[in-house]
Amino acid sequence: MAGNSFGQGFRLTTFGESHGAALGGVIDGCPAGIKLDVAAIQAELDRRKPGQSAIVTQRKEPDTVEFFSGIFEGITTGTPIGFAIRNTNQKSKDYSHIKDSYRPSHADYVYEQKYGLRDYRGGGRSSARETACRVVAGAIAKQFLSEVKFTAYVSAVGDISLSKPYQALDFSVIEKNPVRCPDPQKAEEMEAYIKKIRKQGDTVGGVIRCVIQNVPVGLGEPVFDKLHAELGKAMLSINAVKGFEYGSGFAGASMTGSQHNDHYNEDGTTKTNYSGGIQGGISNGMDIYFNVAFKPVATIMQAQETLNSKGEFVTMQGKGRHDPCVVPRAVPIVEAMAALVLADFTLLQRLNKHQI
Amino acid sequence: MAGNSFGQGFRLTTFGESHGAALGGVIDGCPAGIKLDVAAIQAELDRRKPGQSAIVTQRKEPDTVEFFSGIFEGITTGTPIGFAIRNTNQKSKDYSHIKDSYRPSHADYVYEQKYGLRDYRGGGRSSARETACRVVAGAIAKQFLSEVKFTAYVSAVGDISLSKPYQALDFSVIEKNPVRCPDPQKAEEMEAYIKKIRKQGDTVGGVIRCVIQNVPVGLGEPVFDKLHAELGKAMLSINAVKGFEYGSGFAGASMTGSQHNDHYNEDGTTKTNYSGGIQGGISNGMDIYFNVAFKPVATIMQAQETLNSKGEFVTMQGKGRHDPCVVPRAVPIVEAMAALVLADFTLLQRLNKHQI
Amino acid sequence: MAGNSFGQGFRLTTFGESHGAALGGVIDGCPAGIKLDVAAIQAELDRRKPGQSAIVTQRKEPDTVEFFSGIFEGITTGTPIGFAIRNTNQKSKDYSHIKDSYRPSHADYVYEQKYGLRDYRGGGRSSARETACRVVAGAIAKQFLSEVKFTAYVSAVGDISLSKPYQALDFSVIEKNPVRCPDPQKAEEMEAYIKKIRKQGDTVGGVIRCVIQNVPVGLGEPVFDKLHAELGKAMLSINAVKGFEYGSGFAGASMTGSQHNDHYNEDGTTKTNYSGGIQGGISNGMDIYFNVAFKPVATIMQAQETLNSKGEFVTMQGKGRHDPCVVPRAVPIVEAMAALVLADFTLLQRLNKHQI
Amino acid sequence: MAGNSFGQGFRLTTFGESHGAALGGVIDGCPAGIKLDVAAIQAELDRRKPGQSAIVTQRKEPDTVEFFSGIFEGITTGTPIGFAIRNTNQKSKDYSHIKDSYRPSHADYVYEQKYGLRDYRGGGRSSARETACRVVAGAIAKQFLSEVKFTAYVSAVGDISLSKPYQALDFSVIEKNPVRCPDPQKAEEMEAYIKKIRKQGDTVGGVIRCVIQNVPVGLGEPVFDKLHAELGKAMLSINAVKGFEYGSGFAGASMTGSQHNDHYNEDGTTKTNYSGGIQGGISNGMDIYFNVAFKPVATIMQAQETLNSKGEFVTMQGKGRHDPCVVPRAVPIVEAMAALVLADFTLLQRLNKHQI
Repeated sequence: MAGNSFGQGFRLTTFGESHGAALGGVIDGCPAGIKLDVAAIQAELDRRKPGQSAIVTQRKEPDTVEFFSGIFEGITTGTPIGFAIRNTNQKSKDYSHIKDSYRPSHADYVYEQKYGLRDYRGGGRSSARETACRVVAGAIAKQFLSEVKFTAYVSAVGDISLSKPYQALDFSVIEKNPVRCPDPQKAEEMEAYIKKIRKQGDTVGGVIRCVIQNVPVGLGEPVFDKLHAELGKAMLSINAVKGFEYGSGFAGASMTGSQHNDHYNEDGTTKTNYSGGIQGGISNGMDIYFNVAFKPVATIMQAQETLNSKGEFVTMQGKGRHDPCVVPRAVPIVEAMAALVLADFTLLQRLNKHQI
Repeated sequence: MAGNSFGQGFRLTTFGESHGAALGGVIDGCPAGIKLDVAAIQAELDRRKPGQSAIVTQRKEPDTVEFFSGIFEGITTGTPIGFAIRNTNQKSKDYSHIKDSYRPSHADYVYEQKYGLRDYRGGGRSSARETACRVVAGAIAKQFLSEVKFTAYVSAVGDISLSKPYQALDFSVIEKNPVRCPDPQKAEEMEAYIKKIRKQGDTVGGVIRCVIQNVPVGLGEPVFDKLHAELGKAMLSINAVKGFEYGSGFAGASMTGSQHNDHYNEDGTTKTNYSGGIQGGISNGMDIYFNVAFKPVATIMQAQETLNSKGEFVTMQGKGRHDPCVVPRAVPIVEAMAALVLADFTLLQRLNKHQI
Repeated sequence: MAGNSFGQGFRLTTFGESHGAALGGVIDGCPAGIKLDVAAIQAELDRRKPGQSAIVTQRKEPDTVEFFSGIFEGITTGTPIGFAIRNTNQKSKDYSHIKDSYRPSHADYVYEQKYGLRDYRGGGRSSARETACRVVAGAIAKQFLSEVKFTAYVSAVGDISLSKPYQALDFSVIEKNPVRCPDPQKAEEMEAYIKKIRKQGDTVGGVIRCVIQNVPVGLGEPVFDKLHAELGKAMLSINAVKGFEYGSGFAGASMTGSQHNDHYNEDGTTKTNYSGGIQGGISNGMDIYFNVAFKPVATIMQAQETLNSKGEFVTMQGKGRHDPCVVPRAVPIVEAMAALVLADFTLLQRLNKHQI
Repeated sequence: MAGNSFGQGFRLTTFGESHGAALGGVIDGCPAGIKLDVAAIQAELDRRKPGQSAIVTQRKEPDTVEFFSGIFEGITTGTPIGFAIRNTNQKSKDYSHIKDSYRPSHADYVYEQKYGLRDYRGGGRSSARETACRVVAGAIAKQFLSEVKFTAYVSAVGDISLSKPYQALDFSVIEKNPVRCPDPQKAEEMEAYIKKIRKQGDTVGGVIRCVIQNVPVGLGEPVFDKLHAELGKAMLSINAVKGFEYGSGFAGASMTGSQHNDHYNEDGTTKTNYSGGIQGGISNGMDIYFNVAFKPVATIMQAQETLNSKGEFVTMQGKGRHDPCVVPRAVPIVEAMAALVLADFTLLQRLNKHQI
């Protein structure tokens, strides 16, 4: 209810503030008998970590995960997997200037209103640092779902966007550039643009596309917990996300039924895929694909007028090391949340048929 | 887990297929002491009902709600509110032609794969008829939240869309035309277009905008259950929805931080509202606004080739009385789901502070 | 959260007051493909219904269940099963004398304190009439678990109790006497005692023993949701229940480990069964057995002094037709709740192992 | 669903095996603004820890709790409280003799059947070591409910039991003897008996009584989540518990209604309290009291024949340092679980009334 858990069968609960002792979580419901590759989990964390390239925050946080339980001799035991990531780089002093002030378009003001107090040393629980825990759990979900392929990439930064459909792109390029864009030329343009924006002390938004392949038919629950509804919630729960669309998305709203309907092949696949791999909330075996829109990071390196807790206007300027554009580091987060949703529904689908 | 419940504190569970005896639901967690206006609940149902105008399905279903419990002398008692809506117009014969065939872009095929069998008489549980129950519960949620104002309207049908911001529109116009569009001229264009599309035996998609006003500060839980994440899930759980965006939405992805940041007034309100009334997943007291994209209805009155359960191609043509465009009737559903989300978070917010 | 649902995978939500229009419920998560015997469900309801013998309440309530959804051509579809039982015998006038008074050892006073108001026409939601819905759902759970055998019986009424272990009893006798006691001589004693107590305008408590046989190994979750913990909660949630013990129970507290340990046979069964079929919260394949203690019904046909809503003492005397002893009619309720617990854990156990 | 969480509003999730790196948990839903006394939390852990007296296990485990999050400047922030307790004394070698054998009346066999594998180094997740996490969370719940008084004590060890009602006992004596029994003479007898039993290499069971005082009226949800049903589940989820009874308990089953009914005083209190402070599942403001029966510890220091994983009989003898009687150390666990239940229902009760 307090909203720090995600999933029902495969369930992640996270804890931890950006400037506390540690972040971490508990994965409850991971089935027994999965051989875990811990290095692969750490590799996913490294895709998210600060300081990995010239276009992301230059903070140095190693983000090393320690597992406490639920794994024995390298195999999951079916019991809860507890883990923590120590905060090793909390420079609390960096944040003293914001103790009594509410940063524009940050959650400082609403936290104080909601709880009556807040951990003023940073974003606290609203910091995107929390997503490191999601990446850990998502990496385990990926290993559980070893047959399913999750691929996310940056499809837009500011006004620079990919026009090619995902089928025309070479996914092996994604991790070869710091933007995580599968079109090398666009990647260069995006990188140059991010650097320019950073030089201006500004930030910029972007879009991530995610493609899920080799999904079995039948995942998703038909009414409130439709597969795309949970994917949408999962994505919208990531910091800075403003929109989600799947399949034909917003463009589908201007189409006619005769254009939009996907016609069957004899094997149950469809000739087109405006449906985005989901019919009535249930996977149909075709590729699932969706877009996630991210707003520009609110912390900018320019002076801004804002409010303090006494109701006075004060001038504030972002300090420290922040991301000029969040999407390159958000790619593994999008994949992680997608994997958590699919892992959960994979388990839940085991409940739907009578077995004698 | 089977996904027929929505909400935690204010929780709706629904049941019922399009061609069974009845649909209905249980609202668990509605606080005691709310004076209910039952006529107002029925009026919301009437906004959703078939046959209400020339541009929606001409089926005649009165959709009368019967309450079983939880209300005593016109006041909620805090105990669960059970209700049902009888299906009075199930013409099962209308559907015999689809018994063994999978309608394109419908859920027939995935239901059969998921459950091993399906109620072939209609959409069963995947029918939008299920949303009548949401409208009942949403109407009660609105009465619980009597201070909050929920307004949804059609902002696009096919390529015809409103360009004006919601602040420039006269909401009192919405219910005065069958499209539920607050711009009278655009409403006429949309109506003419829908009629034309229907004459072609085709269907068309559209967009609904929803505005929630007078929301208290502090609603929403900060991590997975962000206010906009639950709103997104709520909307994506409505039949035919393909996308959700709030505040600046997808357009925000191409903006810079210096453009996008909302600056404070002295009273904690903001000068702009790109945030869409939500910061870090928590309401900030500004208007919440979002867009919901609907695909065109899959049932068209044109012959289509499709698959039957033997894996053969067959020709199928929609029969009966279907909506050429779903958005006019979806307006009250969007409002209902928004009200359910806000009711839930209003209750949950009572838990967050220590009271001595 | 408001506590009207039970179970996670196989989940029952109930609604309805004793004197409203109807009681009913929704079973969400019943797997698809179960052939339902509706007559068998009604037969379970008939075991619980008033007026069935000379030693229970003489109210006439047919308690006929109507199913709304989730069943198609006699088979469960995997979608929620909605149902209702009409209240046909609400003599609201019978209860006018208690409108402003709190019956001793009833929930009138706490309801009014909890909710600020109450449906004064009867017990409202605290009436044991609610358990009719549990019997419906339990009957479906039994059909889902067709291999498992649930047997409950009355093992004590007042001071008259069975001393024989359940293995020495003939379960086929249970339904052959109105007390539902498998020892014919004790049954006669109990029946005579109940009649005597009723003649005195008094009531008496009793104990029900339940035995669950042919349970697969592995049901139950190891920490908070231990199989016996959920069984205990299930039983304690039945009206008038004051205690629960399983296996050796309270007697086990005075034993030594060398006496109490159950030693294995070669096939994994055990020579003794002090454990009551459950080890560490997980079924071990041996018979599960437990006792449930019921207090005497609070409504007695004697004058009692009690309090009214003005804080004054008033004299009150039970009217109408009440049970002098609740245990004969509670036997099917105990079985129903046991079946709901086992159905739920049977589903949940599908989630615990990796399947490749 | 995997059963490692307890509570809805005030929710504890635990992780950790007896022989892994650490145990720990997350408390989600603890309200913001509670000043925490960390020393008092550690003091509760010390009441549970091994080695505290001559009649409990002589293992040396300091059981020091480390908090990771959710507390800022000594005050709860409303965000999840993550914590861990390192396992510092895992002598895995001690357990090699049980790697392939199933200890009688332990969960070894059922774990292996349930999950397909198990952490053979000890009880794993079925070890009572898990309850240390409950004590941490319960200590925080107690501080949240500073007005409510939780007192548990040992009321029986083997056949030695207290006959006095709790009102006649001096609770200040409880912590002054190693048995935690408020009757000094009985405490001595119990202590002597436990020492004798240990010398025999045997173990013995016992009973704990818990009294909860100063409870507000209105806690508990009326149907499935009755206050005593959740208390019962909470207690039955503690290792080795075989039975739970509240108020008149099993003895109430042989009483008549005219004896058992609690009559009101003018202020809404009652003259007697057979109800045990709960009516219809809802607290009535009177003392809540209940008994919890514990079986003898299964690990005995005598040779026992048991089964190995090949289906062969082997002789096994308990090694190491085990409790001859579990109840002295279980006293703080019972209190902790009671506090968790009350904390949860205290929060949930905030949802039940309309507030304008």
